[in-house]
Amino acid sequence: MKYENRYCVIMCGGIGSRFWPYSRTDMPKQFLDFFGTGRSLLQMCYDRMLSIVPKENILVVTNEKYARIVKLQLPDIAPEMILTEPDRRNTAPCIAWAAYHIAAINPQASMVVTPSDHLITRESVFEDCLKKGFDFVESHDALLTLGINPTRPETGYGYIQIDNEVVPGFRKVKTFTEKPDRDLAQVFVDSGEFFWNAGIFLWTASAIKEAIHKYMPDLACEFDEGLPVFGTDGEYEFIEKHFPVCPSISIDFGVMEKADNVYVECVDFGWSDLGTWGSLYENSPKNMMGNVTQNCNVVAYNSSGNIFMAPEGKLVVVSGIKDCIVADAGDVLMICPKNEEQKIKQMVHEVQLRFDDKYI
Amino acid sequence: MKYENRYCVIMCGGIGSRFWPYSRTDMPKQFLDFFGTGRSLLQMCYDRMLSIVPKENILVVTNEKYARIVKLQLPDIAPEMILTEPDRRNTAPCIAWAAYHIAAINPQASMVVTPSDHLITRESVFEDCLKKGFDFVESHDALLTLGINPTRPETGYGYIQIDNEVVPGFRKVKTFTEKPDRDLAQVFVDSGEFFWNAGIFLWTASAIKEAIHKYMPDLACEFDEGLPVFGTDGEYEFIEKHFPVCPSISIDFGVMEKADNVYVECVDFGWSDLGTWGSLYENSPKNMMGNVTQNCNVVAYNSSGNIFMAPEGKLVVVSGIKDCIVADAGDVLMICPKNEEQKIKQMVHEVQLRFDDKYI
Repeated sequence: MKYENRYCVIMCGGIGSRFWPYSRTDMPKQFLDFFGTGRSLLQMCYDRMLSIVPKENILVVTNEKYARIVKLQLPDIAPEMILTEPDRRNTAPCIAWAAYHIAAINPQASMVVTPSDHLITRESVFEDCLKKGFDFVESHDALLTLGINPTRPETGYGYIQIDNEVVPGFRKVKTFTEKPDRDLAQVFVDSGEFFWNAGIFLWTASAIKEAIHKYMPDLACEFDEGLPVFGTDGEYEFIEKHFPVCPSISIDFGVMEKADNVYVECVDFGWSDLGTWGSLYENSPKNMMGNVTQNCNVVAYNSSGNIFMAPEGKLVVVSGIKDCIVADAGDVLMICPKNEEQKIKQMVHEVQLRFDDKYI
Repeated sequence: MKYENRYCVIMCGGIGSRFWPYSRTDMPKQFLDFFGTGRSLLQMCYDRMLSIVPKENILVVTNEKYARIVKLQLPDIAPEMILTEPDRRNTAPCIAWAAYHIAAINPQASMVVTPSDHLITRESVFEDCLKKGFDFVESHDALLTLGINPTRPETGYGYIQIDNEVVPGFRKVKTFTEKPDRDLAQVFVDSGEFFWNAGIFLWTASAIKEAIHKYMPDLACEFDEGLPVFGTDGEYEFIEKHFPVCPSISIDFGVMEKADNVYVECVDFGWSDLGTWGSLYENSPKNMMGNVTQNCNVVAYNSSGNIFMAPEGKLVVVSGIKDCIVADAGDVLMICPKNEEQKIKQMVHEVQLRFDDKYI
């Protein structure tokens, strides 16, 4: 197939509440320069894609309220390549829209769908994997997901169980498994049969449209009504009306777990979903005491295993603090043990109850 | 003696390094509104004195670099009542200057000397004690210090051992004792013979000048040279030249521990020197979990015995933090166990080594 038929869809509508107080509803995680490199996670995602698909074939799907930030951060993207959802509806409607949109522009299109807020450290391996993935889906009737070689019994990820290899590097998927508990996760890792589900998918536009028709007929029905308008000036008016009534379902649950033509490419390119402070800690360089410092200056006594994040130039002085997240986001300071980070959603909820949206 | 002969000297030149990062060299503790009442510790000190001495008899001795802040915070004080030291020289030279200055203006003067950064909660008792103290020093050849009835075996204070009572409420001093260890402090408190040395003194200007001549003759010699100029336009020129060569000695060590006419008025007016974060914690209202909150909003889980201080309107969210000082001063965040607060000076030193004066 031809390089110019390859498209990329960057999903960029999440609110990243697990990274509060850094991630805010008006500036979520994907727009933040987490590693102080000068590029946000979204920008790093875009940069990676430039060597894989033609620049003008990169789409971003985001929420209406983030459209301005996307334009600011990615000034090279044409306005018509930013699809702005009028509402939050999980990944299935988001991907369906992108697939219908791309198919209308180019019926021969193949596409990679990727979250905007993940970390990938080995970009040349990533590039190679994606190119092979495109080749595969363009020559097979396949919905392809990327499976990451697990390096630890992570309980925060979904797992993919692999089946027999159909061509080298590509296997049938046996099952998708939701986040396991610690013991089960260890069994998964030890078995060698389970891979992390990265939420990065490749397929042809026609293959995913067909799967949506088969497994989410209501959703397909909704979008089929708009077939005459996708890729035209009437598209947004249609979306404004039809998107909000779509079911809020993930593509994993709606399609991948049901379809019989699902394949996995098992890869190893230094991936993290950066879904939690803990994963940011794991993926950041540490000093001798096992402390991670983001942006700020730190003077630490008898303190280890912490992640310190504070505004550029701020000094953080601590004594006797162990295995904590210390996150100073200007108007909010959070101090929380790393192993209690699942409480952050509860904290955000409590803060919202007490102070409305002031700190959210 | 006459009310109009009574003077007050507020010592206001300290740098308050134990309250770092709130107290900074360019805005030390005495100038801060610690309790969010709208008045700084200096202003509260000044307010207390208004009912004790004539308003125009209140002097402030401070460092040159704080003169502007004093004028801003106490706009009612005449410029000539603010004595600005060209250098830091502990309390003996400070008090000597104030005594020579006042004696030159009014040879009949009596005076109270007080730190500017202490907390006094029972102001009417304080007023009553000071009036009785003035009466005492104006009718006896006496150097009077105030002894605070100790409520706990505090190791951060000096103690005064009392001797026989000479008039009701006034006793001879047997000894001054430096900061004791915990066991000795407990013995002191249990004995009923020891009182905290508040560093508040009363005497006539002539009595303290005489004592300085007797026990610190070098210092007296230095100031005697200026006798013709005190209270005139030439005073500052004289001080610029002579103050920096004065020995840096406290009035306690230089005079009080040596003189034989030292008396103590035993008082109980809710006093704290607010010398440490711990004493601020002790003197502040606490919530059910024993947390103290200054200025900011706090949402706390499984956290007790802490003091939280952050800029007005900031939200502090913590989990699992116990018995700590959490002090966010804008450009510096300090988190330190309350029982390690003696380390703060070491921290400040380390910060200065690494970042010069940026955060000091």
